[in-house]
Amino acid sequence: MLAEALNRLVKELTKLPGVGEKTALRRAFHLISLPKSELQALAKSIIEVKERLTLCSICFNLTDDDPCPICRTDRGDSDTICVVETPAHLAAFERTGQFKGCYHVLHGVISPLRNISPDDLKIKELLYRLKEDKIKEIILAMNPTREGEATAIYLANLIKPLGIKVTRIAQGIPRGGEIEYLDDATLRSSLEGRKEL
Amino acid sequence: MLAEALNRLVKELTKLPGVGEKTALRRAFHLISLPKSELQALAKSIIEVKERLTLCSICFNLTDDDPCPICRTDRGDSDTICVVETPAHLAAFERTGQFKGCYHVLHGVISPLRNISPDDLKIKELLYRLKEDKIKEIILAMNPTREGEATAIYLANLIKPLGIKVTRIAQGIPRGGEIEYLDDATLRSSLEGRKEL
Repeated sequence: MLAEALNRLVKELTKLPGVGEKTALRRAFHLISLPKSELQALAKSIIEVKERLTLCSICFNLTDDDPCPICRTDRGDSDTICVVETPAHLAAFERTGQFKGCYHVLHGVISPLRNISPDDLKIKELLYRLKEDKIKEIILAMNPTREGEATAIYLANLIKPLGIKVTRIAQGIPRGGEIEYLDDATLRSSLEGRKEL
Repeated sequence: MLAEALNRLVKELTKLPGVGEKTALRRAFHLISLPKSELQALAKSIIEVKERLTLCSICFNLTDDDPCPICRTDRGDSDTICVVETPAHLAAFERTGQFKGCYHVLHGVISPLRNISPDDLKIKELLYRLKEDKIKEIILAMNPTREGEATAIYLANLIKPLGIKVTRIAQGIPRGGEIEYLDDATLRSSLEGRKEL
């Protein structure tokens, strides 16, 4: 017998990924304890995120302005394009602060099982960029899944004939990984990709 | 270089308990993928939870209507009051579906260190209820912390002279607990509270 307004909030919060009823309830009680102004700021940011964001017409990342800040700025390596599956993956690479080039977001991977063909992805748009701009290297940064690998091979076959260097992000044991518990494929990658010290 | 609207949402989400920047970003991308109507429903529920809720004038639980549904309803054991620290604890006991009595929310525990005295809690209001209503049993359901225990003893000393039965929730090993890793106080409680089979 929870208050109706509380119940509704809990119900809405459980729609978020990884939030069960218990977590939702804890979050709800925390929200209640916040000042009204903060709740309104949170609510506003939730509504606006959908209204304000569009896709960059160059790299297809989520952006407030078109073209997006990354495409607008020369960050040092603008002749390198890192091809990713989703805006979330782009954000993950950006968080490292290491990459100074451009991105291209495919918005998925080729998947016959889920009926996603190359035409459903931003592949034509990538090839168009390669014709227009001077690009030296394409980094294929799809997930190391079967579908990610297949998409990488598909793209490599299209791009290499254009005389552009095509690379794939390294696979191996993750930092802090425990060799005893890692899968065979990862261990095999870590051996294959070994580097001399 | 994330989009501004996305950055703002991530910033707002990190204000929630237990949400770091990585989790906030994952949540934000999930929110973006939801239809606009769902985002609006979530935003609305966040704003309304603060506007709609008040404290029940009898038990001081959060409620849309005063008195709250629990105080309004005879659930079977309305002569038993379960005294809890917070509305969140009340919700936790309600989730068990086992308790059919009323509640009383103290909104804290006595804590000399944090400068919280009995007068800062809803203790007067509890004593008033005991005078007005026919109450047979008071269950003290504060946390088994030092402050919770002190508050329980304080209340027991006030209520027992009124001729009302006062009980304390059981302490012992939690379901699924691993004896090897449990603290001494818990193990001691589990021995002291042992039951014959």
